[in-house]
Amino acid sequence: MDSPEFKTNAAGREVPLSFNGRSHVPFQGVNKYSPKGHKYAAPVPSSQDFPRDGDKRVKSLKEALKKSGLKNGMCISTHHHFRNGDLLANQVFDAANEMGIKDLVWFPSASFPCHEYLIKYLENGCIHHIEGSMNGPLGRYTSEGKMKKGLGVLRSHGGRYQALQDGEVHIDIAVIGAGCADPFGNANGLTGPSASGLLGFALADSEYADKVIVATDNMVEFPCIPWQIHGNNVDFTLLMEKIGDPEKIISGTTRISKSPDRLYLAELTAKFCEAAGIIREGFSFQSGAGGTSLAVGEYFRKIMREKNIKARFARGGSNTYLVSMLEEGLVEYILDGQTFDLEGVRSMIENPAHVWTSPFTSYNHHSKGNFAGMVDVVVLGATEIDVEFNANVVTHSDGYLLHGVGGWQNCLFSKTVILPVPLFRDRIPVIRNRVTTLCGPGELIDVIVTERGIAINPLRKDLIEKVKGSGLPVRPIQELKDEAERICGKPEQPEFTRNPVAVVKWVDGTVLDTIWQVGNYSD
Amino acid sequence: MDSPEFKTNAAGREVPLSFNGRSHVPFQGVNKYSPKGHKYAAPVPSSQDFPRDGDKRVKSLKEALKKSGLKNGMCISTHHHFRNGDLLANQVFDAANEMGIKDLVWFPSASFPCHEYLIKYLENGCIHHIEGSMNGPLGRYTSEGKMKKGLGVLRSHGGRYQALQDGEVHIDIAVIGAGCADPFGNANGLTGPSASGLLGFALADSEYADKVIVATDNMVEFPCIPWQIHGNNVDFTLLMEKIGDPEKIISGTTRISKSPDRLYLAELTAKFCEAAGIIREGFSFQSGAGGTSLAVGEYFRKIMREKNIKARFARGGSNTYLVSMLEEGLVEYILDGQTFDLEGVRSMIENPAHVWTSPFTSYNHHSKGNFAGMVDVVVLGATEIDVEFNANVVTHSDGYLLHGVGGWQNCLFSKTVILPVPLFRDRIPVIRNRVTTLCGPGELIDVIVTERGIAINPLRKDLIEKVKGSGLPVRPIQELKDEAERICGKPEQPEFTRNPVAVVKWVDGTVLDTIWQVGNYSD
Repeated sequence: MDSPEFKTNAAGREVPLSFNGRSHVPFQGVNKYSPKGHKYAAPVPSSQDFPRDGDKRVKSLKEALKKSGLKNGMCISTHHHFRNGDLLANQVFDAANEMGIKDLVWFPSASFPCHEYLIKYLENGCIHHIEGSMNGPLGRYTSEGKMKKGLGVLRSHGGRYQALQDGEVHIDIAVIGAGCADPFGNANGLTGPSASGLLGFALADSEYADKVIVATDNMVEFPCIPWQIHGNNVDFTLLMEKIGDPEKIISGTTRISKSPDRLYLAELTAKFCEAAGIIREGFSFQSGAGGTSLAVGEYFRKIMREKNIKARFARGGSNTYLVSMLEEGLVEYILDGQTFDLEGVRSMIENPAHVWTSPFTSYNHHSKGNFAGMVDVVVLGATEIDVEFNANVVTHSDGYLLHGVGGWQNCLFSKTVILPVPLFRDRIPVIRNRVTTLCGPGELIDVIVTERGIAINPLRKDLIEKVKGSGLPVRPIQELKDEAERICGKPEQPEFTRNPVAVVKWVDGTVLDTIWQVGNYSD
Repeated sequence: MDSPEFKTNAAGREVPLSFNGRSHVPFQGVNKYSPKGHKYAAPVPSSQDFPRDGDKRVKSLKEALKKSGLKNGMCISTHHHFRNGDLLANQVFDAANEMGIKDLVWFPSASFPCHEYLIKYLENGCIHHIEGSMNGPLGRYTSEGKMKKGLGVLRSHGGRYQALQDGEVHIDIAVIGAGCADPFGNANGLTGPSASGLLGFALADSEYADKVIVATDNMVEFPCIPWQIHGNNVDFTLLMEKIGDPEKIISGTTRISKSPDRLYLAELTAKFCEAAGIIREGFSFQSGAGGTSLAVGEYFRKIMREKNIKARFARGGSNTYLVSMLEEGLVEYILDGQTFDLEGVRSMIENPAHVWTSPFTSYNHHSKGNFAGMVDVVVLGATEIDVEFNANVVTHSDGYLLHGVGGWQNCLFSKTVILPVPLFRDRIPVIRNRVTTLCGPGELIDVIVTERGIAINPLRKDLIEKVKGSGLPVRPIQELKDEAERICGKPEQPEFTRNPVAVVKWVDGTVLDTIWQVGNYSD
């Protein structure tokens, strides 16, 4: 890859002006970039080119790819509804590789450790590069400069929808794995051995890709009800033996933390919300699927029970804990963005108040508003935070890319954003002078909760005022940072080369930061 | 309007090559026209231009129209979910007229007698012309050449979606009336005084219009569940005192015919389906909301009970009768396109097997297939049929335009299309040498059932074979026509001027026929 031209963006980060074959706009500031023109639109199909009886079944993945016109250099998308139990993406590239296809762009909604398998196709040229989150092994591979032909592009869930909608990324062939589908292509993730809940991450692909393949291990007669994916957008359907590993589809992260430190962070976060008046009749909240976030939900439950408070809705990933709050009547609606366990799936099937959403409804910045902004409080994680409340969620302090953005950036638009983080991890301070990678601008991050005190963003004078006299340990962020450094010492800075390996996009499609090749690894 | 250039299309009908400011393709034959290019796409919005808390409420229709940038010559759409009880469209044009706006194009999904009120705005220049179905008084007005500035354009429900999707019609401002909505614009038609069932006819408008206004008389707190219209596509929301007249929202046509002649037609239709082997385990059917069609459903029910047969799904408008078949277990799913009564609404709320559809899923010809083709048998009406099985559904034999196309054309793609019609109405034969207006090409129409015999399209050798020996009165269509003419005499032909007043579009956007100004009316 030729060395791209760089520019320092509005966040003070050096970002490339072009990569992966097209130019990109540097970050201009939060809510500063105004999109122009019209959305992308797929070619006009005609029903006369499809079987009149609606039966679009083909016999194999290879046949589906061939009939979709698979060629060198195309962009293929897959989705992470099966999480680390995904058995489909690897088979897609096995098929493409057997067909002798080269230089494919893989555009997953997220990648998981199970996709380490695909490194061999990056090595042999079947895959050109990956545009999408790279967790674990693929992140490490990328950080070491081994994905040589293109930059990784990390987008939020909403940003991925925006990129497709705005025509920034064009998918030639989308392969959608579904727990249940009919021969016409109507599909949902609710039943069958690979039931995973909703299929929201594939919505944009079904709307904007040239060709759409739905693969299932559970083909039912038309109509597949409900249809989360419309068969009217689908070209080919396919019954496969195995597309997901049920045990691994269930996320490993949906257990409440048992660590006393984490539980303390969660309790402090809930207490802060209570003191700030956020937990009130009809409020709304979102918390992630991590152990601490789940624990926050449990502390919310306790407070809500005590004060007889009901939330209007909870957004985000659903799981056993949230479902039990819904069924207890503490939450009126779950607006589900990702179903993390089978209790979530069961509830989604049974309960009309457990509603499936998509990155379009919840997160797309280039729409006429989205749900994220309506949520009263969101509790998120971070790998690093700086003294101006900027946060990092994709790289570790050693410079390695190890996580995707997920819905994290999109959630920053909620009314109050709280990051409960330990002051240090493995004796490495979490609060820094400057985050290794900028994922979230500090002006959108309101509160940092640590085990040694709570820092409130000075921009949120209202919150500072509200918790005065509450007895909560509110402290300036600089003080927290100094304290961590007194205990752990000043953190070392990671060494980087001048070789960019990936970029982080902002929710509006502009380039927020660059991830550089680490300089200190031994091959 | 300048006299347009005409061409004889593949159906032998003379059609204008351009009208209403743009060129149009003449009908090329069934499944012969291949669309080119990409779908239309709306401008890219940005959530930063919308209230972050999601509250898009304005105080009045005038404020909504003003903020939407209403200007002379714009295209405004409304929808017929409230049928003859619609109180919204008239108020929209009252507001526009008070604002002094001229030359608006009205693009309704259908018009009803209640919209006769709008003739005054055609007269005073506030409305330039109507692109959409013109039932009753508006049809008469148009047929008499009084809508002088533009041609009426009659499209099927699927054709209306196609026209918006393909960019043939561009809506500046869509005004969507909803039984229930939240301040963000999520909306459904399920509750409140103006509950009307689903809001499928407004789906395309919400996706493709520049500006979208949702008006309701029943504003609920976010989130309005379920959302049939996504608030993410909505610009402004509005609580109005009255948008629909509940008594008139319920269609007057959803009563089973009591006429012995009609009941006989219905029974004969059902017997034909039984003899042809169409009523079998897992079959599917669609029948309209007219008295005869409803009666067909009841005869189906009888046969299904006797033979212990269950239908996989019924498509089309829902009503008391269809709902009771669902609840009796005779039908597994209702794929509802329009909810004709409150029993339909109740069922849609309560029963996940009562599924709402849209013209996109059911009817859009320019998609990757649609549901219509998957239906085993559809029973439809017609005003006239010719000896080649071509049919008319919009004009009467006196030449007057009095009905819209509705889903009629789209349903012709079902596996077997049956038209039960009386051999004559008011002593005017229904079977003609040539239909006054061509709405459905004969090759798609399979069976005509009359009280004096059943005519099967010679193209359907399979059906002819199947009912051999059944004892059913199968006769050549020419014989039926001759018999009617022996009884009633040869029908007079309507007189027309050379002035086109409207066109009928085919499902693919091509022009199927022209409706001419009647020549024999006295002003």
